[in-house]
Amino acid sequence: MDLNADLGEGFGIWRLGDDHALLGLVTSANVACGFHGGDASTMRRVCAAAAERGVAVGAQVGYRDLAGFGRRHIAYDFAELRDEVTYQLGALDAFCRLFHTRVRYLKPHGALYHAAASDEAQAAALVAAVSGYDHELPVLCPPGSVLAQLAMGAGLRVVAEGFADRNYLPNGSLVPRAAPNALVTDREQVAERAVKMATEGVVVAVDGRAVPCHVESICLHGDTPGAVAAAEMVRAALIDAGVTLTPFA
Amino acid sequence: MDLNADLGEGFGIWRLGDDHALLGLVTSANVACGFHGGDASTMRRVCAAAAERGVAVGAQVGYRDLAGFGRRHIAYDFAELRDEVTYQLGALDAFCRLFHTRVRYLKPHGALYHAAASDEAQAAALVAAVSGYDHELPVLCPPGSVLAQLAMGAGLRVVAEGFADRNYLPNGSLVPRAAPNALVTDREQVAERAVKMATEGVVVAVDGRAVPCHVESICLHGDTPGAVAAAEMVRAALIDAGVTLTPFA
Amino acid sequence: MDLNADLGEGFGIWRLGDDHALLGLVTSANVACGFHGGDASTMRRVCAAAAERGVAVGAQVGYRDLAGFGRRHIAYDFAELRDEVTYQLGALDAFCRLFHTRVRYLKPHGALYHAAASDEAQAAALVAAVSGYDHELPVLCPPGSVLAQLAMGAGLRVVAEGFADRNYLPNGSLVPRAAPNALVTDREQVAERAVKMATEGVVVAVDGRAVPCHVESICLHGDTPGAVAAAEMVRAALIDAGVTLTPFA
Amino acid sequence: MDLNADLGEGFGIWRLGDDHALLGLVTSANVACGFHGGDASTMRRVCAAAAERGVAVGAQVGYRDLAGFGRRHIAYDFAELRDEVTYQLGALDAFCRLFHTRVRYLKPHGALYHAAASDEAQAAALVAAVSGYDHELPVLCPPGSVLAQLAMGAGLRVVAEGFADRNYLPNGSLVPRAAPNALVTDREQVAERAVKMATEGVVVAVDGRAVPCHVESICLHGDTPGAVAAAEMVRAALIDAGVTLTPFA
Repeated sequence: MDLNADLGEGFGIWRLGDDHALLGLVTSANVACGFHGGDASTMRRVCAAAAERGVAVGAQVGYRDLAGFGRRHIAYDFAELRDEVTYQLGALDAFCRLFHTRVRYLKPHGALYHAAASDEAQAAALVAAVSGYDHELPVLCPPGSVLAQLAMGAGLRVVAEGFADRNYLPNGSLVPRAAPNALVTDREQVAERAVKMATEGVVVAVDGRAVPCHVESICLHGDTPGAVAAAEMVRAALIDAGVTLTPFA
Repeated sequence: MDLNADLGEGFGIWRLGDDHALLGLVTSANVACGFHGGDASTMRRVCAAAAERGVAVGAQVGYRDLAGFGRRHIAYDFAELRDEVTYQLGALDAFCRLFHTRVRYLKPHGALYHAAASDEAQAAALVAAVSGYDHELPVLCPPGSVLAQLAMGAGLRVVAEGFADRNYLPNGSLVPRAAPNALVTDREQVAERAVKMATEGVVVAVDGRAVPCHVESICLHGDTPGAVAAAEMVRAALIDAGVTLTPFA
Repeated sequence: MDLNADLGEGFGIWRLGDDHALLGLVTSANVACGFHGGDASTMRRVCAAAAERGVAVGAQVGYRDLAGFGRRHIAYDFAELRDEVTYQLGALDAFCRLFHTRVRYLKPHGALYHAAASDEAQAAALVAAVSGYDHELPVLCPPGSVLAQLAMGAGLRVVAEGFADRNYLPNGSLVPRAAPNALVTDREQVAERAVKMATEGVVVAVDGRAVPCHVESICLHGDTPGAVAAAEMVRAALIDAGVTLTPFA
Repeated sequence: MDLNADLGEGFGIWRLGDDHALLGLVTSANVACGFHGGDASTMRRVCAAAAERGVAVGAQVGYRDLAGFGRRHIAYDFAELRDEVTYQLGALDAFCRLFHTRVRYLKPHGALYHAAASDEAQAAALVAAVSGYDHELPVLCPPGSVLAQLAMGAGLRVVAEGFADRNYLPNGSLVPRAAPNALVTDREQVAERAVKMATEGVVVAVDGRAVPCHVESICLHGDTPGAVAAAEMVRAALIDAGVTLTPFA
């Protein structure tokens, strides 16, 4: 099983999350590429630390929207988005190369992540960018999303991710964030769910039934208070359960 | 002899210069990388057209200053500048790869071009960025500049460029831009000077003496009225004089 | 009748449209405020020239999106948009004050103009910004839009604008831009339609019937080739028809 | 005596310093205006809270450099800087007006603060911006600076500020930040120095002698760990010493 988290999301003087702590927990780092967050020196620093620890670096590409942290939907057209994603891939890859590694996968950020789950044009733009840049690059995204379908159709490797701290509907999709029971807040429960995903390929949905959840990576969050402690518990529980943690890419 | 010019310096809806016309004249295109000008779709478009025509693409790296078009000196520290230049190199290279080519050289833009001629920290940052990214990448810059010295010291190839439309001092350096006689405006004279640089390796300085001017590339300008016509004359005169025009990289 | 046009939409080194020519034609200038286009020195220059000529200055507020020129819909939340519009109003007013005048109205730009026609939250944000900043400030917008309704509900003055170079549906709304017959391209016809709007309060719809079109301002375009010449014809035709051209504000 | 501090320096999702705590300590808030830090919603929030508490709001104007937080010198020309400062003044004033107050003074930020102390063109740009916008607006700056001189020459009110946590040279100027003894780190000493400035108009210089230090405001820092606690001690010590804390503007 792989553990991924968003890293390098500060900008200039401003910090966000605890990159150092998360680098000790994850096997894959989704590194912000400067459009919604992240700057060149932060990218270099995170890539250096990731390379040293054997953590795989993925391009966490986002909308060009520092003011909104990439969390507001923007009605990009296909070509603009494809090209800005290509730009971000290349920029991050430059820092990976400095440390004798490469960008190993792509994961969209924030509103782009959500748009790519259902918007064909934006999902297609991501697929076109990856296909053009490096056809071997996997795409990390929710299973069953439009992005997953288009990426597979284009012959790209799709890696499904699960969320141990999110509740699931009986159909296997996430409870929408706006719902009161969107999040699982009890840390022990979160850790337990991660183990169930990793060892049995199931998640207990809101109706109490175990539903299939075949994922290759579990997403950890690092930007809320206590998030790092929760992530540590997930990692420890997986190791205790005999799960091998290793990058999917 | 190589002919270089700045291309792809528009941003979003805003255009600058005549990329199409210049691509028919130069052998090397200094492509803006999004920091002082240029955007992802423009970069893609210019790289595609350059690849088609056999024009070499260089990274025209600049300060992060769209509002000032990279023409205002910014007191970057070494690491910030090195990292932002690395970022720009990688971003442009992503578009070159789409068209089965690569970034072939680096040329600093505007205030960074001027800073790198005399400021050790900024020149060193450029050298560090190039050395880290690709040690084979030449640096296009004025002969005798601090950048040229540091780049050579680091084992990088340095390519000297000359300006057929600028006057030179007897010591071989350019008449400062602020001086009334900084520019040579007569087109026939400009073309003649280009031929002299290419065939004899000399330029006639303001005191009338021919001084050595060993350059591998001549810089054309495309952003002023009549610039394209002047560039056409330079190109035609060089061809008439039997000079072979070919990328230096 | 008032004539309005977008002005000051360059940014830094990049120019757009012919501000100088348009200032000689319009009675109201929609001045870009730096978020989708426009910069501080351009704003100052346009405000100075407008004040000198007795042209009213309006705040052409837009999304924070220089790369997309404010033409891409962004899913702002209410408070962010209200605050960014307030910011733009204040910034432009500072330049008006330098020349002993004031911002006289607000007109949303691009994707915000379109969003405000139908999106309640974004329209409400514009209304909240204007109400908070200066309750006397009129809002220039299409008649019948959600923005017009909410603005009137809040006690703001709403000024309807018409487009002499756009075709209208029989219900009085514009033919969508994507439709092949969206634009009226014949200049004489455009001028004639402007006169009809001004003198009879009607426009000939696509089905040939004259439909009511009570507008206080006609929008001229200045960013396409030939636009200034077309605007000149509209202005001349209105004057010939005895229409008095004067700012609505 | 007045106490001032920098506030509202976050941007989008990113926070900086403890605005809430500082608002309980200062009498004047230097509010960032969106160029080096700060965004519209933060500006509104800080202006609302300041108005509620009777804290005077000043425009903390900076270079357009979010990536560098306004801490890198930029070689602006006079007109560009004057216009960008005017823009920032107007933008902040819009939020003050919402809460029935006004921008009460200007204080330059970061590299602009330092440039204005010695660079005539940049200092003159600040003076021109203030003079044009509101001739009654005081300028908060170090005594003896070029900015202070030019502002006084232009008939503006100049308010001198002192730093209780910085060491002074015998000539009354600050020990440069790069020097090892630039800062006074002992909190009790800092509080004591603040009291001495407020009650006796002197500061003990690095050579042990008391030198004149006639200031109307003392600058507190809030962006380092422990800064708020130190600021609380300064405030308490001044009140204990019978000093009345009140905005200078």
